[in-house]
Parts: sequence; structure tokens; C-alpha cells
Amino acid sequence: MITKGAAEIVPLEALKERIAKSITTGKPMRIKAGFDPTAPDLHLGHTVLLRKLKHFQTLGHTVIFLIGDSTALIGDPTGRNVTRKPLTPEQIAANAETYKEQVFKILDPVKTEVRYNSEWLNKLSYYDMVKLMAQFTVSQMLEREDFHKRFNEEQPIALHELIYPIAQGYDSVALECDAELGGTDQKFNLMRGRDLQKHYGQQQQIVLMMPIIEGLDGVQKMSKSLNNAIGVHEPAGEMYGKLMSVSDALMWRYWTLLTDLRGSEIAQMQADVAGNVLHPMQAKKNLAWTITKGFHSQEDADTAAESWAKLFQQRGVSENVPVVKVSRSSEGLIGIADRHEGTELRMPKLLQLAGLASSTGEATRKLAENAVSVNGDKFSEKLVQEAVLGDSPTLRLGKKSVRVEWVG
Amino acid sequence: MITKGAAEIVPLEALKERIAKSITTGKPMRIKAGFDPTAPDLHLGHTVLLRKLKHFQTLGHTVIFLIGDSTALIGDPTGRNVTRKPLTPEQIAANAETYKEQVFKILDPVKTEVRYNSEWLNKLSYYDMVKLMAQFTVSQMLEREDFHKRFNEEQPIALHELIYPIAQGYDSVALECDAELGGTDQKFNLMRGRDLQKHYGQQQQIVLMMPIIEGLDGVQKMSKSLNNAIGVHEPAGEMYGKLMSVSDALMWRYWTLLTDLRGSEIAQMQADVAGNVLHPMQAKKNLAWTITKGFHSQEDADTAAESWAKLFQQRGVSENVPVVKVSRSSEGLIGIADRHEGTELRMPKLLQLAGLASSTGEATRKLAENAVSVNGDKFSEKLVQEAVLGDSPTLRLGKKSVRVEWVG
Repeated sequence: MITKGAAEIVPLEALKERIAKSITTGKPMRIKAGFDPTAPDLHLGHTVLLRKLKHFQTLGHTVIFLIGDSTALIGDPTGRNVTRKPLTPEQIAANAETYKEQVFKILDPVKTEVRYNSEWLNKLSYYDMVKLMAQFTVSQMLEREDFHKRFNEEQPIALHELIYPIAQGYDSVALECDAELGGTDQKFNLMRGRDLQKHYGQQQQIVLMMPIIEGLDGVQKMSKSLNNAIGVHEPAGEMYGKLMSVSDALMWRYWTLLTDLRGSEIAQMQADVAGNVLHPMQAKKNLAWTITKGFHSQEDADTAAESWAKLFQQRGVSENVPVVKVSRSSEGLIGIADRHEGTELRMPKLLQLAGLASSTGEATRKLAENAVSVNGDKFSEKLVQEAVLGDSPTLRLGKKSVRVEWVG
Repeated sequence: MITKGAAEIVPLEALKERIAKSITTGKPMRIKAGFDPTAPDLHLGHTVLLRKLKHFQTLGHTVIFLIGDSTALIGDPTGRNVTRKPLTPEQIAANAETYKEQVFKILDPVKTEVRYNSEWLNKLSYYDMVKLMAQFTVSQMLEREDFHKRFNEEQPIALHELIYPIAQGYDSVALECDAELGGTDQKFNLMRGRDLQKHYGQQQQIVLMMPIIEGLDGVQKMSKSLNNAIGVHEPAGEMYGKLMSVSDALMWRYWTLLTDLRGSEIAQMQADVAGNVLHPMQAKKNLAWTITKGFHSQEDADTAAESWAKLFQQRGVSENVPVVKVSRSSEGLIGIADRHEGTELRMPKLLQLAGLASSTGEATRKLAENAVSVNGDKFSEKLVQEAVLGDSPTLRLGKKSVRVEWVG
């Protein structure tokens, strides 16, 4: 339950020991995850960590939901190639409130220790800061991938950005954490907590990193600005529909990272799909229903599922379309992209191989006439690139529909 | 008076304007020099800045003697290739007291504004520090020569060292300085005051840099650890004697940087020596007396001068020795040093050219017998390298003495 979906645990042995010790002593572990209240709207990407916190909470450990109101004054430079514009204290306070409301859709508000790092960071004096900073060197900081990149590309790194990882590390000292959760992109910052705890004579925290979840396109990380996110505030119908649009491959990742299902249960489901016991679309419906129910009521999830099925049928796509097996290695199907890195699926060829067009010429004309849809959506180049190859797409040309099953 | 001895003034025009404005408005300028109370014993090297402060004080400006008790907690990394070990607050407080006592041998204790930068630095909060550091980038800091060197040589630069220049700059903001004095090696730090004053909407301070004075050897900077320094606490006799040991070239530099004599007066003295109106040894005696009197009483200076003259005569060196003119370009006199960078004066050849030995062979033997003295001191290789070429040395071999005057 604890390691399900985790990308990296440093060190794994220590986590096992500490869990064992906690069971023996009956003393819960203290598990922290920090969130900068920079964006007031959470999406499912943010819930990956929250759900892992929930798993610890379910097992009886003390979960600390840390609102980085003081670190937000800096702005986490992780993955950024420019210095962030800091938020005002007023924006931060407002965002923090919105945050809590959304977070308690996953975490138990009674059992969760909600803290703000202004509690201890704002008490640091000039001399405290000097002593904290004395623990690290410029070179160590520039080892961080994004700093390193900016430094080499002569993009400015403002000095206050160097404080961020140190402040985050000091949070772990102040909270005496046994473990800290974060995304894999947070590794540098998370490890600084271990450094500082050692310096302050504390037991070093375990760092548990969760993967960065892909958005609906299955390629880029889920992000509001990339328009591939599902917000936790979205109505049940929209949430359900968006989840139904993901590829089969991404579906399994969402099962792992966005639900509480055990790894063994997910493996069983995958086996059922592989053995034709469970239709992949049914597995996806189950996923969409499970996640939607988590953020809304069961009734809302049921309604969303019914509406979606109706709409889907209207669009002429159903589960009862004929299946065509197509080999990914069919000649002329996949070529080198002109503008993209990597490969490109050629849609006219796929339509021909699927039996919807007699030639690629005819298929090209039909595509130009907007007569082709994929999974009920009008064809778009983006769909072809990012979803079709990983999915079992239902193609429609005029009134004819087929579902492609990839082989090889 | 203000520009005498200054190595660089940034910007000179602004200094002129601000002095003119001060005269018109009758409002004194605020002139700061900061001292880290790291070494409790001041030597004459430290007094170069203090004397420049005194000149401003004499002209009626407000002089701020800033004791960097908070910056000393970091340790100025200027010119260091390793991170300094910070002093304890107790050491700093004790050193600061010793400092003041010595400083008021030069500055007027009534007119001097003594400040400690803990007044404002210790009030800085975490957020204040974040905002201050946001004004600078990592690259800007690494432009500083010593940081740059350490970074390129993969010597660690601790992050707290980056705070030092910023804290020093913030001192100028807190004190609303019109000008800051410092050594040429302090340029990077001094300029940060201009940056931060601009950021805080203040008029930018003028930066007046004094040269780093050479120690008794005339080559390396005056430093207690290099054993070439004269401490302000040294007895009058020792101070006088050490000053009499400097080369003629260094004597003029000491006149400029270690006395209140005007530039025009020094130029007149140089002309007198060149025109044989004033004997260089007399000019040096005047220097030693003037400086000694400044740190002791006139009576002490007189006594020191008398004792020195008696001792000098006993050693068989007097002003009435015959003068031999020797060309620096004499064949065989100067060769390439084996172990030193640069050139080496060959002492046996000099003794031959000065007429004290009939051959270099004889001179070499006499040197081996320790029969040679230079300016009353037994010959040592160090003397040859560092003082003899810049001086008019009195050489003695057995009972014969000559004074060398360099030509060409």
C-alpha cells in the first residue's frame, strides 16, 4: 500500500525499519508533504501525493499537510527556467484556504495535522539564516538540474531561489519528520531535509517520491496551463468524460496513481483485460466512476456514467463495433515526423488498413472533409500523435465504425 | 586631501558634486568605513582607511566607524580561498572593544559615529533576507574575483558567504551613506551598497578605494601573519626601528598613505631628495618620527629616534659613508632567479661593483663568513631580493662601509 506507485524511496530499507519500529512501539510515523499555495485550483496531478498521504493516514500514521506560505514568498524554482514572481501574503492566505477545502476531499480533516511553514521560517533571524546557508555550497546548489541548466545557459538564478531547498529542508527539522513525500522532480529539495536533519542531530527522514502523472494526452505532465488536466472541482460529468478519453495505457497508470486500489487488484484487472474477460472500455468506465465518486457522490458518478454512455451512443460509437487487428509495423503506417521529434502515425494508411477507405487517397480526401472521428471526437492531428497508438481507438468514417486492436 | 593616495573613486564626478553641495548646504556628508572585528590587533595597514576617514572628519563631515559585528558572524570571504571560521559573538564583542581603543588614536572619539551593524542586520527577518537576496543572481556573485577563482578551481563556496556582500551593501542603506571607503580588494562588496541604495530609492554612495599597503618587505601586503607589519600597539622604539628599515621607494608610499601630509608637501620633499637638498635617510627619519609620534607622544618619538641613531652608529652605519653609484644594468648583476619568479640581484657582484671586494669570488667567501651587512643587518637573501634594489643600501664588509646609489 505504501510503496504502490512510488517512483523512488530513499532509503527503502530505512522505511521498512521505521514502519516495523512504529508497529512495535505503537508510535505513529510523522509524514510530511508540502504544498505551495501558488495555484488555488488543484487538479488530479496534485492528488497523487495527497492519496499517498492518505494511505499513510489509513495505516494510522500522522500526516502533516504543510502549507508553504513562507516558501511561497520565494516560489519554488523546480523545473523553472525563469525566476518566479512571488505571490503577495494576501494571495497566499486566500489560496491556502481554497487548498484546504479541496485537500479534505481526500485526507481526513480530523486526523490531518495542517501546518504553515511561516510558523518557524518567519522566526528565523539573520544569524539563523547565515548558519543554515553555511551548510551548503554554491556548487551543491548548482548540481540541481534546473539550476545547472540555467547557469550553463546563462539564464539568471536569483540568490533567493537558493533559499528554497534549504527552507524546505528546515521544515523537516522543525516538524521532526520521519518521511517526506514529493514528486520525482522534487528530489533535490527533499534530500536537503535529510542533510539538515543530520546537521541538527535528528534521524534522517525517508524520502518517498511519486511519479509526475501525465495529463489526458498521455504525454505531457498534467498541468492546467497545458489544458490536459482534470480539476478536483470539475462537475462529475466533465470529470467522467475526460477520464473516458484517456488511452488504455494511461488508464492503468491512473488506476495506480489516482485510486486506492491495491497493486494486486490492479494486476488482476489487467490480466482480465488481457484474457478478454474484461473489456478495456469497461475497465475505463470503472476507473472514471471510481475517481468521480471520490470527488462527488456515488449518485453523481452514476448519473455521469449514464449521460456519458448516452452521448457516446449518439455519436455512433458503441462497444459493439467490429474489431480490426492492425499491426503497428504495417508498412507505411508509421513514418518519421516532419515537425515532431520521434515517429508519426499516418492516419490515411490506418483508415485503409482498418477497412474504412479503399485507398490512402480516398482516406486523405475524407480526412480533409472532416468525415473522420476517433473515439467519437473529430479527427485532429494531436489525437493521432498522442492517443491512438496507445489506445484501442474506435474509428468512424461516415456511418462505418471499427475498433482498432493493435498487434505486434 | 580627500583624493590623496586614493586608488579609485567611483564616480569621481559625483564626489566632487556632493562635496560642493555639502559646502553650499552646510550639511555634512555621511562617510562610512566598515571593520570586521576579527583580529583584535590593528596594524598600520588598517590605518590607511582610518586616516582617510580622519581627513573627511577634519573637513567637517560625519564619519561612521562601523563595527561589523553581524557580518563578522559570516567572515568576509574577500581574498580568501577557503571559507572562514566564524567568530563567536563573545570574541566579536571583545575584539570590538579593543578595536575602538586603537581606532581613537587616529579618529576623534567625540566626532565619530560608532555603529554596529547588528543594529539593523539582526532585525532582518526571513522574508527581508529573501527580498534582499532576490536583488542579486548567482552569476553576479561569481563575478567576484575570489568567488570566481574558487568556483573554477572547484573549491567550495559556502552559501552564507554570498550574504556578506549583500549585508555590507545593506549597511549603506541603513546608514544612508554618501560615501563608503574600503580597500581596492573590497570593490565588489562596496559596489553592492550602490546597487541596494538604488533599489531602496536612495542616492547611490560614492565608493572611495584606498590601495592595499605593502608591508616592511615592500612586496607583500602588510599582514601580521606575513610578519611584515607594524602594530599600532607596538612600543615607540620598535615602531621607529621598523619604519627605518623600509626601502626608499616604500618610504614615499608610507608618507602618502600613513601620514596626514598633503600631496604637495610630499612632492616637495621628493624634489629635495632628488636635488640632494635632503638626504633620503633624513626623510626616512622624519617619516618614522612622524608616524611614531602619531601613536605615542612626541617625547617617545624623540627618544626612539635617539636610541635608533645610537644603535645604528654602533653597528657602524652612519650617514657619512662614501657613496658609490652603481648601474642596475651592470653586467652580471641581475640574473634570472632559480626559485623566485622574476629577477635576482647577485650580491657578490654588487659587493665587487661597490668596491668592497676585489672579485666575486672573494665576495662569495665573505658572504659565507657572515661578514657582510646591509643597512646594519646581517646579509640575508630576503634583504637582497626585496629591499636592496629599491633602496640606497649601506653595505658593510668587515670595517668598510659604502652607500650604493642606483643609477639607470
